[in-house]
Order: sequence, then structure tokens, then C-alpha cells
Amino acid sequence: VIVYKMHNIVIIVATGVCHTDLYHLFEGMHKDGFPSVLGHEGAGIVESVGPGVTEFQPGDKVIPLFISQCRECRFCKNPKTNQCEKGWASGRHAMMASADSRFTCKGKKVLQFMGTSTFSQYTVMNQIAIAKIDPTAPLDKVCLLGCGICTGFGAAVNTAKVEPGSTCAVFGLGAVGLAAVMGCKSAGAKRIFAVDINPDKFEKAKVFGATDFVNPKDHDKPISQVLAEMTNGGVDYSLECVGNVTVMRSALESCVKGWGVSVLVGWTDLYDVATRPIQLIAGRTWKGSLFGGFKSKDGVPQMVKAYLDKKVKLDEFITHNMTLGQVNDAIELMKVSCICVLCVLFSLA
Amino acid sequence: VIVYKMHNIVIIVATGVCHTDLYHLFEGMHKDGFPSVLGHEGAGIVESVGPGVTEFQPGDKVIPLFISQCRECRFCKNPKTNQCEKGWASGRHAMMASADSRFTCKGKKVLQFMGTSTFSQYTVMNQIAIAKIDPTAPLDKVCLLGCGICTGFGAAVNTAKVEPGSTCAVFGLGAVGLAAVMGCKSAGAKRIFAVDINPDKFEKAKVFGATDFVNPKDHDKPISQVLAEMTNGGVDYSLECVGNVTVMRSALESCVKGWGVSVLVGWTDLYDVATRPIQLIAGRTWKGSLFGGFKSKDGVPQMVKAYLDKKVKLDEFITHNMTLGQVNDAIELMKVSCICVLCVLFSLA
Ligand SMILES: NC(=O)c1ccc[n+]([C@@H]2O[C@H](COP(=O)([O-])OP(=O)(O)OC[C@H]3O[C@@H](n4cnc5c(N)ncnc54)[C@H](O)[C@@H]3O)[C@@H](O)[C@H]2O)c1
Ligand SMILES: NC(=O)c1ccc[n+]([C@@H]2O[C@H](COP(=O)([O-])OP(=O)(O)OC[C@H]3O[C@@H](n4cnc5c(N)ncnc54)[C@H](O)[C@@H]3O)[C@@H](O)[C@H]2O)c1
Ligand SMILES: [Zn+2]
Ligand SMILES: [Zn+2]
Ligand SMILES: [Zn+2]
Ligand SMILES: [Zn+2]
Repeated sequence: VIVYKMHNIVIIVATGVCHTDLYHLFEGMHKDGFPSVLGHEGAGIVESVGPGVTEFQPGDKVIPLFISQCRECRFCKNPKTNQCEKGWASGRHAMMASADSRFTCKGKKVLQFMGTSTFSQYTVMNQIAIAKIDPTAPLDKVCLLGCGICTGFGAAVNTAKVEPGSTCAVFGLGAVGLAAVMGCKSAGAKRIFAVDINPDKFEKAKVFGATDFVNPKDHDKPISQVLAEMTNGGVDYSLECVGNVTVMRSALESCVKGWGVSVLVGWTDLYDVATRPIQLIAGRTWKGSLFGGFKSKDGVPQMVKAYLDKKVKLDEFITHNMTLGQVNDAIELMKVSCICVLCVLFSLA
Repeated sequence: VIVYKMHNIVIIVATGVCHTDLYHLFEGMHKDGFPSVLGHEGAGIVESVGPGVTEFQPGDKVIPLFISQCRECRFCKNPKTNQCEKGWASGRHAMMASADSRFTCKGKKVLQFMGTSTFSQYTVMNQIAIAKIDPTAPLDKVCLLGCGICTGFGAAVNTAKVEPGSTCAVFGLGAVGLAAVMGCKSAGAKRIFAVDINPDKFEKAKVFGATDFVNPKDHDKPISQVLAEMTNGGVDYSLECVGNVTVMRSALESCVKGWGVSVLVGWTDLYDVATRPIQLIAGRTWKGSLFGGFKSKDGVPQMVKAYLDKKVKLDEFITHNMTLGQVNDAIELMKVSCICVLCVLFSLA
């Protein structure tokens, strides 16, 4: 095993599949983005540390972070954002990988997807992109905090800043959307509309706090109008957790004028998202959220603690346990969109 | 003179011309929006009051408000918005007038533009849409607070919430944009980029606090890139004061990722405004502002006081003094965009 300066080698123990893996594979398909080891929602154990690494020791339980937190750049120093300048993401959104990677296959470089690549037994990460977590945390559960759950939960709590007594709508009920429902609930929302074209998702959404379900396929009218009629003019907060620009527009236009806030969580870089200027002039706010606005190294251990303290659910997200060898089946399952989330369990090396 | 219940009759003493008048006339041109008496940026004196009016007396100096403040609706009661449910605007944006009007011409109804119609010697207004102001205020100056100056100033101060030490960009240097520059300055912005395709505007912009001028015509690159290069990644706040969806997109994309806030002030309802979702996911916020976010009856008298206390400039906005008979010349002048703002003075009846 080669040891890199300032890097840790992490053994991945468990990983979830997030729609962003599928986006890269089937939708984004950037020509310079392959070959790549996918996966970015994992948990593991430090195997060895490079020279200069002081923060970690072999044996530490950790979660790899697709957003780094160097604590030194002007972004890390600004409380308004969780976007660190040092990560893979700087200017390379489309490729979804940084220029350097430690993966090779038959002598050819293989990209490290989103700086993590958790569909692998081993990965090499810079310490600015690893969170040390409570050693008692079950890795096959908290791996979900590596992306989807922090993303959805934080989008509601940190980005939308949902207020007690408010009315919310969450579009898309994958892991991210369900976590957003949980975030709205935890922030004290009174009414939470869960919107999905797959009605099978509703039972699960109820578990996380949804109070109403709307299937756009059941209505001839635009969904923004349906929600406006059900809520005296629109919801206070909406969160788009699909990754579809038409849904993003609906989500914005479902908000009440005056103070409605809509947050883009779904990831897509293929098309423009649009609306009439009057929608914003009328007092709506349009925002976006990356990793739920959590400063990653600070936020992830806190969320692990919240799970251990039973303030955040994780077990309820897991519908399938599979092995790394079944990763392609897992992706197929997710593609047909009949499940809520996958936790692909790897056996320890 | 017919006296209407709960209404006041206001004599208009002075009025400015705002681009929104031109928008209605030349761009929006909604088929149900004419005939109409234009003008919505005026100041006047109460001539008589209808039964039930307790707040006003003949002789009061007032500013007609195109956004009402009834103090009773759920919007008025919510500190987050200045949009009252009782105004002309409810659901009639495109026509830019409410269904009822007291103006007639040869027996035919003439619409009251934006609930005000200040290009007239007399207008009849509901008391929820009139602000009583300091009796010492010069009407031929404070009339500008009826729209453009509150709009631009408030968009910076109330909607964008510009912070001390920040970097701002204002697109469009008409009265609204110049007032936005003044708002940025008053909020403590360190650097204020004034962006206009008419370089003649820059001298004026300097008076209000602009530090840099950018003429998009001088550059081959997109203006967002030009600004990003001049500011290490983009401005903290941008304000679109043109009313052009292409400029709205540029203004958003000129903001720094992580925390940049862009505010739409320019009014247009003809085309969609668009961007890539990633622009928002990267941490930018897109908002809009109507009348600068000021609760109208509360805000306008405060702005009049700020002018009398020399905390807000008004005289510097005025480039031409004309009579009501010259209103068409005034509109022509504004159309060729060679002036900053007009104050059309009317003689008292
Ligand atoms: N911003 C971030 O930091 C971040 C992080 C992780 C994931 N994401 C993105 O979040 C999105 C959701 O991820 P996921 O893993 O939960 O996805 P998923 O595929 O598990 O779930 C998507 C859900 O959307 C539903 N859906 C599809 N079309 C719809 C429509 N028109 N209206 C309503 N619902 C519809 C599907 O039925 C499904 O339930 C993806 O776009 C993903 O790339 C963003
Ligand atoms: N939101 C509100 O409450 C509200 C209130 C009043 C006015 N408005 C709107 O604000 C806008 C400005 O009003 P105004 O009276 O100051 O208008 P104006 O016509 O006096 O000024 C517009 C300025 O924009 C400049 N411009 C035109 N194209 C440009 C471009 N591509 N890039 C940069 N600058 C460009 C022009 O040269 C001019 O200086 C209008 O759209 C008006 O309808 C909105
Ligand atoms: Zn993800
Ligand atoms: Zn950083
Ligand atoms: Zn105006
Ligand atoms: Zn009201």
C-alpha cells in the first residue's frame, strides 16, 4: 500500500447509492468523466495515514466527504456557506471528479468520483475531506449521512430554514426527499406535502412526517395550482429533490407569494431552469443547497450523534442490503425507482 | 366632485415618470390594460375625504401608493413582506390596473394605472394606499419616493440586505438603479460596480456612490465573467434594474458562489428568466423586490424624513422639469434613455 502525504487510506465498510451516481452514469455522461469509480455515500475505517496526518489514526471510524472543509479558505471561514475552495468540485462540476486520482486499472487512470469513490474496498482521501465519527456508530447505517440524509435534512433545516408552524412541500421522495421531509418535521412544520409520481413512496414519507400526499399524475392542473388551492395560496417552503428542471419550476411556483422559499436540491446541469420574473418579484426566494448546507467536517459528526441520540432516523431509509458484487443490480433497482434507498453492505477486507 | 366612501381625492402636484409607465405603454401592452391614465410616482394634497375616512384631512400632504398597506391582511401582518392582499395588484399584474376606476372619458371607463394614475390633476385613492407625509416636505422632490427611489434603495437595503464591507453590482442606471447604488452605499458597501450600456450614466452614478463602471459593450466576454475577474469570483450582491431577462441572468451569474444574492427589480412579465440549476446549488440566492420591500404606508413617510434629514438624496435624480402638457415629450426623452429621471411638475389646480 502506497502512503500519500497528508492523505488517509480508508477502508469502505458500507455505502449507499445516491441518485447522483445514476445521474453521472446515465444523464450527465460527461465525456471526460469516465472511467470512474462511483459511490460517494459511505462509511469506513482508516487503514493507514500518510506523513503529516495528525487528525486521524488507523482504526478511526470515518465518513468520506464529497465536500471538503479545509477550515482555511475564505469559504470555510464564512459562516454563510459550506463550499470549500479546496475540494474536487472547484470548476469541475461537469466531470464530477478532480484531475488527480489514486485509482488505476491496468495502468490507466480511473477517476475518483466526487473525490470519494465509495464503491470500492479502499479509497485514498485527503484529510480535509474526512469526518471522524463516534466509534460506537454502526457504519452500515451512518454511511447514509455521507450524502442523502444530510443533504435532504440540511436543505430543510439549514438552507430553507423551515420555521415552526409552517407549511412545506417536498418534491421527490427518494432518500434525499424523505430526509427533507424529516428535516421539515424536525424544524416544526405543521403540514408537509409529499409530492411524487410514485404513490408507493407515500407510506414511507408518512414515517418521516409527511401529512399529505400529492401525485401529479392524479391532476390535470399544474401541481403548483393544486397546492395553492390546498394551502390558501401556496406553501411557505418547497424543496425539489428530483433533479428535473420542470419540477424545479413547479416547486418555486408552489410557494406562496410574499415570503415563499424554494430550494433546489436535485442535481442536474443539463438544462436551464426557468420561471417568470414576476414569480420572484412577488416575493419568492430561489435557493440551492449542496450537502444540505452542512460544513462537512463539523456537520457529519453532529448528525451521527443526532442519530445515536435518536433525534434523526436512518434505519427506516434502508430497504435493501446487498454486497459490492451486486452494485449493478442496486443501480438497476434504483433506476426503476421502486425503492426508497439502498444500502449496499461490503464485508470488511 | 363625487365623494366615495373610504376614499380620498388627491390633487397631484408633482410626478416622476418611471420606466414601468413605459413598459405598460410600449412593452407589456396588455389588451385589457387600456385606456388608462398612466403615472404612479407622485405627490399631492388631499382635496376632500369620503365618509368614514379618519386618517386624512383636506390639506394633508400625501404620496399615493401603488402598493397598499391595509394593516389587516395576512401579508400586512407578516413582517417578511410588503405585499398587501387588498391592492389593485391581486391577480391583475398583466392589466396593471384593478377592475374598478373612477376615471371616465366621454362616458367610457378609463383604467387607473397601478391604482394611482398620477399623470392627472386629480385622482381618487383608497386610504389604504395613501401615505401622509411631513407637511414641510417639498412635493416636487419627494414625489420620487412614490416609486423609483424607494424601489431601488429598498431593494439594496431591505431585500438584498447589503452588508458593510461588501461588493455590489447594479445593472441599469435609471432612477431605480441609481437609488440602488445609493442604497448599497448607505448599507456600507465597499465597492459598487455600476453597469450600464450608456456610459453617460456613470458620472451620475458616482454621485450616489458607485466606485467602478462597467459598460457591457466594451467587453467581448460575458459581463458575469468580467465582474468575476475584477472581484475574485463575483460580487456579494447584484441588483437588476433594467427589466431584461438576459440582464437578470447575468446579474445572478455575476454573484460569487457560496453566498451571492441577486435581486430582480426590473419589471417584465413577457419572457421567462433562466439559469443553470448549478448556479443556485452553488449557493447563490435569487430574489425579487417590489417597491424595495417597504411596507408602503410605514416606509414612505420614513423615507421622506430621511430626505429631510439629508440621509437620502433626491434632488440629484432630477434632470428635467416639465409640465403635464409635456408628458408625451417626457416619455419620449425617457425612451431614448439619455436621462436619469424626470420630474414632471404640475401646477396646482
Ligand atoms: N444537492 C446535493 O447536494 C445533492 C446530494 C445528493 C443528491 N442530490 C440529488 O437529489 C436528487 C434526489 O436524489 P435521490 O437519491 O433521493 O433520488 P431517487 O431517484 O431515489 O428519488 C427521486 C424521486 O423523485 C421521484 N420523481 C421522479 N419524477 C418526479 C416528478 N416529475 N415529480 C415528483 N417526483 C418525481 C421518483 O419517483 C423518486 O421517488 C437527485 O437529483 C440527486 O442527484 C443532490
Ligand atoms: N420592482 C419594482 O417595484 C419596480 C418599481 C419601479 C420600476 N421598476 C422597474 O425597474 C426598471 C428600471 O426602471 P427605471 O425607471 O430606472 O428605468 P430607466 O429606463 O430610466 O433605466 C434603465 C437603464 O437601464 C440601462 N440598460 C438598458 N439595457 C441595459 C443592458 N443590457 N445592460 C445594462 N444596462 C442597460 C439603460 O441605459 C438605462 O440607463 C424597469 O424595468 C422598471 O419597470 C420596478
Ligand atoms: Zn449523493
Ligand atoms: Zn475550505
Ligand atoms: Zn415605478
Ligand atoms: Zn394588507
